[in-house]
Amino acid sequence: MDRRSFLRKSAIGGSAAAASTLAAPLYAQGNRTLTMVTSVPDGFAIFDDAANYAANAITEMTDGQITINKQPAGSLVGAFEVFDAVSSGQADLYHSAEYYFLNQHPGFAYFTAVPFGMTGVEMLAWYYHQGGAELHQNLASLFNLRPFLAGNTGMQPGGWFNSEISSADDLQGLRFRMPGQGGQVLGRLGASVQNIPGGEIYQALSSGQIDGAEWIGPFADERLGFQEVTSLYYTAGFHEPGSALSLSMNLDVWESLTPAQQRIVEIACEATHANNLGMSWAENGAALKRLQSEGVQVREFPDDVWQAFGTAAAEVRQESMSDDLFAEISNSYFEAMESTSAWWEIGDGEYIRQRNRVNAG
Amino acid sequence: MDRRSFLRKSAIGGSAAAASTLAAPLYAQGNRTLTMVTSVPDGFAIFDDAANYAANAITEMTDGQITINKQPAGSLVGAFEVFDAVSSGQADLYHSAEYYFLNQHPGFAYFTAVPFGMTGVEMLAWYYHQGGAELHQNLASLFNLRPFLAGNTGMQPGGWFNSEISSADDLQGLRFRMPGQGGQVLGRLGASVQNIPGGEIYQALSSGQIDGAEWIGPFADERLGFQEVTSLYYTAGFHEPGSALSLSMNLDVWESLTPAQQRIVEIACEATHANNLGMSWAENGAALKRLQSEGVQVREFPDDVWQAFGTAAAEVRQESMSDDLFAEISNSYFEAMESTSAWWEIGDGEYIRQRNRVNAG
Repeated sequence: MDRRSFLRKSAIGGSAAAASTLAAPLYAQGNRTLTMVTSVPDGFAIFDDAANYAANAITEMTDGQITINKQPAGSLVGAFEVFDAVSSGQADLYHSAEYYFLNQHPGFAYFTAVPFGMTGVEMLAWYYHQGGAELHQNLASLFNLRPFLAGNTGMQPGGWFNSEISSADDLQGLRFRMPGQGGQVLGRLGASVQNIPGGEIYQALSSGQIDGAEWIGPFADERLGFQEVTSLYYTAGFHEPGSALSLSMNLDVWESLTPAQQRIVEIACEATHANNLGMSWAENGAALKRLQSEGVQVREFPDDVWQAFGTAAAEVRQESMSDDLFAEISNSYFEAMESTSAWWEIGDGEYIRQRNRVNAG
Repeated sequence: MDRRSFLRKSAIGGSAAAASTLAAPLYAQGNRTLTMVTSVPDGFAIFDDAANYAANAITEMTDGQITINKQPAGSLVGAFEVFDAVSSGQADLYHSAEYYFLNQHPGFAYFTAVPFGMTGVEMLAWYYHQGGAELHQNLASLFNLRPFLAGNTGMQPGGWFNSEISSADDLQGLRFRMPGQGGQVLGRLGASVQNIPGGEIYQALSSGQIDGAEWIGPFADERLGFQEVTSLYYTAGFHEPGSALSLSMNLDVWESLTPAQQRIVEIACEATHANNLGMSWAENGAALKRLQSEGVQVREFPDDVWQAFGTAAAEVRQESMSDDLFAEISNSYFEAMESTSAWWEIGDGEYIRQRNRVNAG
């Protein structure tokens, strides 16, 4: 028995066993359990919080019609195997980050975050009102999936380093953990980039397998204990300015839901987006203070390193533009961002500048 | 018959009439129609979009158990009468902005926006993760209400003026429409402030009853046609840096809902918060471009006017601090903001600075 058919068998067996313990009338009303596989272990801050929030909201709003049975990374399938598992119907839905699946299609990058791309609030604009969701659905449907955004970590720091980055030359040969287009950018600048699942970063960092890593942000990173291994924390990052998390359902499962159940899944994910973005903002400031009190030193990349990131990011993006769907997604994304960032400049940007000035004065 | 008992009678009559046309089995299952009164006319951009989004989400997710029957400003009750109508049970819920109800309690200001306060994303943090929602519930429960945030306009511009604001002296005697603490600040600086419902601003402006007004932002303001009357638009404003909209339900009605229905209302509102904040960001940049092409001129308040706003805002806030609940809410709000704004500085702030520099270069 190969692993896939084993998994399928286990999942079906599990459902049948669960169903048999339910009272007949409930089962007759169509109550069902859906298996959600995720890319992080239980308890991983921000990321697993989003998975739980979405799962619980769906379970509670459907009043028992649908129970989401969460299977964290490594229990049914590995962290990065969730896409294939749900696409093929071995599991019903996943909670993850789309940029883990660039091998399936490079366009998935835009539904998490891309270098020099959108902040969290800009992502809300593009996704729900400037065509993002429709493009996401077009892309994911090629893989028999119905996708949603369901979480947002906000701006992700540049990450944890074991020595100062004074110039782009310091990136040469650096063994660093970073997924997505960001990782491709570091690779282009000479780093040896590894895409390691969240659950394995601490081990890789503490064993010396890698020199540095980025994960999510102060609150989530603190939970993993990176501060025990390294003490230089580059707070602003180029690579993920507002990383969305996602929930994606097998398309056949999606189509088997009633219209009300479908709407519940959709709205639960949208609420999770707001709730999780708020959590990131609420927790990161306080967590960074704690980290600093434990000796972590905050750093910023020099301007010319930012410039090198920018040049390499444009090149990385250009490499995939021959793919029509990638180009369509990328163009939609950056056109939307041009509009939102221009509004930011004269709106929030000026307001925050004045708020800081007046509050300081 | 006084107006209140007339309204109550009409509402009950309406429900009974509607119920009688439903098939018996559906009614037996507890299907019901809830009347939602709002503070704006149908079709008012951003604001009414949020009301519709929340109402439709609740109706669709409950699969007919609950139908929200929206009654826009002026149909059942006036724009600013929705609070009393729902508090007393004449209507079941309202969609509005809490700072319209400072006469009921000054603490309501914090659940829309206050001068030099939070941006939209900071509001997500405080409300859902730093104690905001609980304080909102404590406050509203004094009025027999169960409140939620359900929308966010993002940063609201300083507004439309018929002459330049070169110094704080230019505010003397200015007849200006602005609600909330912001309006109190302008009043303290010598303006003659009027709190006019959204549906009546254009008429007041075009008739010369007021010299200027703020409403929501480029997209919503354009819809109302202010550009036909005045052409100076101060884009960044001090008064409402991320205005939340709200949905509040009569507490007895709330307690009559099943746990699943309650969860649906709660999650629908949270999703509306994300969706509406995204809409504001998506639409404002493009709308401002259109306004500028029609001759609208963008202005910024000089630094010393911002300083005057800041001084007056602190005084306005201080005036209500003797009220314990106001002080508790205000302190919670500003403590949360201190943490989120500090994280902003070294995170998003530095990122956006670099993004703009690199993209321009």
